[in-house]
Amino acid sequence: MTCAVLCIGTELTRGELVNTNAAWLASALTDLGFDVIEDVVVDDDIQRISMALDRLGRSVRVLICTGGLGPTTDDLTTRAVAETLGVGLVRDEASLDAIRRRLEKSGRSLSASNAKQSEFPKGADILPNPVGTAPGFGVTIGRASAFFMPGVPSEMRTMFEEQVQPRIRTLAARTTHQIRLRTYGLPESVVGERLQGVEAQYPGVLIGYRAHFPEIEVKVLARAAESESAHALCERATTEVRARLSDVIYGEMDDSFAGIVGHAVRNKGLTLAIAESCTGGLVGHMITREPGASDFLLVDAVTYANSAKTRLLGIDEEVIRGHGAVSSEVAAAMAEGVRRVSGADLALSLTGVAGPGGGSASKPVGTVFIAIASAAGTTVVEKHFHGDRQKIQTAAAYAGLDLVRQACA
Amino acid sequence: MTCAVLCIGTELTRGELVNTNAAWLASALTDLGFDVIEDVVVDDDIQRISMALDRLGRSVRVLICTGGLGPTTDDLTTRAVAETLGVGLVRDEASLDAIRRRLEKSGRSLSASNAKQSEFPKGADILPNPVGTAPGFGVTIGRASAFFMPGVPSEMRTMFEEQVQPRIRTLAARTTHQIRLRTYGLPESVVGERLQGVEAQYPGVLIGYRAHFPEIEVKVLARAAESESAHALCERATTEVRARLSDVIYGEMDDSFAGIVGHAVRNKGLTLAIAESCTGGLVGHMITREPGASDFLLVDAVTYANSAKTRLLGIDEEVIRGHGAVSSEVAAAMAEGVRRVSGADLALSLTGVAGPGGGSASKPVGTVFIAIASAAGTTVVEKHFHGDRQKIQTAAAYAGLDLVRQACA
Repeated sequence: MTCAVLCIGTELTRGELVNTNAAWLASALTDLGFDVIEDVVVDDDIQRISMALDRLGRSVRVLICTGGLGPTTDDLTTRAVAETLGVGLVRDEASLDAIRRRLEKSGRSLSASNAKQSEFPKGADILPNPVGTAPGFGVTIGRASAFFMPGVPSEMRTMFEEQVQPRIRTLAARTTHQIRLRTYGLPESVVGERLQGVEAQYPGVLIGYRAHFPEIEVKVLARAAESESAHALCERATTEVRARLSDVIYGEMDDSFAGIVGHAVRNKGLTLAIAESCTGGLVGHMITREPGASDFLLVDAVTYANSAKTRLLGIDEEVIRGHGAVSSEVAAAMAEGVRRVSGADLALSLTGVAGPGGGSASKPVGTVFIAIASAAGTTVVEKHFHGDRQKIQTAAAYAGLDLVRQACA
Repeated sequence: MTCAVLCIGTELTRGELVNTNAAWLASALTDLGFDVIEDVVVDDDIQRISMALDRLGRSVRVLICTGGLGPTTDDLTTRAVAETLGVGLVRDEASLDAIRRRLEKSGRSLSASNAKQSEFPKGADILPNPVGTAPGFGVTIGRASAFFMPGVPSEMRTMFEEQVQPRIRTLAARTTHQIRLRTYGLPESVVGERLQGVEAQYPGVLIGYRAHFPEIEVKVLARAAESESAHALCERATTEVRARLSDVIYGEMDDSFAGIVGHAVRNKGLTLAIAESCTGGLVGHMITREPGASDFLLVDAVTYANSAKTRLLGIDEEVIRGHGAVSSEVAAAMAEGVRRVSGADLALSLTGVAGPGGGSASKPVGTVFIAIASAAGTTVVEKHFHGDRQKIQTAAAYAGLDLVRQACA
């Protein structure tokens, strides 16, 4: 069953916004079992909106549209739909009431431009908006069931899930089941190579990849006529994928790497302290993005200056002077120092050259020393990362978290 | 002069990737003086690529395409272009040599699928790729000058800037000049209201907005036949915009808020120390994303646990017990403590409830105390932010940096 996404707005055709709606909708529609064959963006021009609707109404069975439902004179979608269908606009009193109530709640009164948002092409199926003022609507254009939603992502997502999805689910004429696996440790090209042939081996399965450096998420999507078959097919293919990537899968669905590491620390009943230099607080930030991190993370001492390493962590100035701040010795002293001053069970430290400046022949940009200290002793690992400052910081933070995970294994 | 962007790839129509290429190209083309009227994404299907090319070749004068030039069997763009034009494919020996040399440099040898990347529609204008293996090319389709580039963003951007831009610049038939102003302190809707009427007042000027919470970037783009007129028009309109937003503009072009704050600290010849709790290292991370932060930032002590506040910053346990970790008193003690242990001139501290848990009637989620300590004394500000954990952390970090900026004014 073919499907298309149409996003309307000059802010998109001028490139002022990245079109996250299109990717979100394409992913949601694929997950429902549709084949999305085209995403289109047109500017706020009534004739071009109309031409796109007419064209897509001939080529797909489901057409999902966003944008141009706001109160301003730039918002032309509803008029364009009415013109495409050759029908008039009709006011919906229930929608007008809902808009008035919503505005009054935030202390505003209904204006003529807001009232415009309660007008719909004659015969439209109105889609309430629990999150904002603009309702959406559904009509038939050509052979397509077409749905129109606001462009604000939070409003669009709620309306799609609550209103549009139930109306189109059966049109996909197949069901799907998906499992997303999260990997860390291999580049996307190698993950792809490892999974070559899986789609052919399991007909009906699509393997998708999403890269968030340095992670690769692998989506196993199975499509079948019956829900149970889709489920079983997905499980079989996922077992195969798990076997091929067993060394790099750290979690699934909405797990995060820092969350899994935090879970491991908490499960062991340990407390953690961090001392960071080149990563500038990134490791602590990753851990504390997850609620509940304060259960086990005592401190993240981001000691940029050598004086801070000495004064806060009690590192001997001679060690820094003798080996340099970026050295195995200082990494070890930082981990041991932050463990001592915080009283934590486990301590992680990172010191390195994130660039762009500061590199040398013996310690080029990308050199990072990572240490783990515990009652059992201290281990230091030397790593060499590539890329710009942000990439080196991210790669180092992941490597540090990975060492914590191993220490809790 | 009208223009369209066509991005080719099933990874886009399945929503596995957000299409940042389309936004980047739309912005670059708008900046060159073109009117981008449509962005289209089609999947890797030779017939649908061909139909899109044929249709867009009739409606625009410049057509910029990305994707589908890779070595795999999914990469069908070149064949689709040849079929659309009714011409054959011709091997370009110079491109083949360049691909072979590039592969050899990374220790690989030329395969048949790589060799495919040196074939182009007969008569095409070849665009070298200094960053990757796949060259691009230009052809005429209908009334459009059409350019085809790889989908990898870094390769596409380099090729667009070095090869495509010089070829299309004159086609825009007008020149542009732009100034981007960076603001902090107002929501986008209010920034938009303040600038109402500027476009009408200065014909030829487009005002664009880009929101990166909590910042709003305002782009003033002037378009005119002559470069000097565009420049002068842009300056006049920007003067107007600056006057209307004087209280919230902190910088322009590629300035960052943390960078400006760091600059202010360095200019005063001061050193800075930070103690963070609810923001989990975000303030330090923002400052150290900029190279050179270690010149003035001595330490960022991210003290989650009360024990860390006591042991590292020397805060009296009684103060924490008596007022709670989220309190004006503890914020002051954190700033004074980190200033004392680090020896910094200026110290910033943040303690609050980022949520989702941890709120109470007297200190609901979003409550944040921010303190600044210096030789002149300590000031504490109480703030209440709204939104999810990440939004509260970001808003608090900006508010903290803003206080540092004010302390250096």
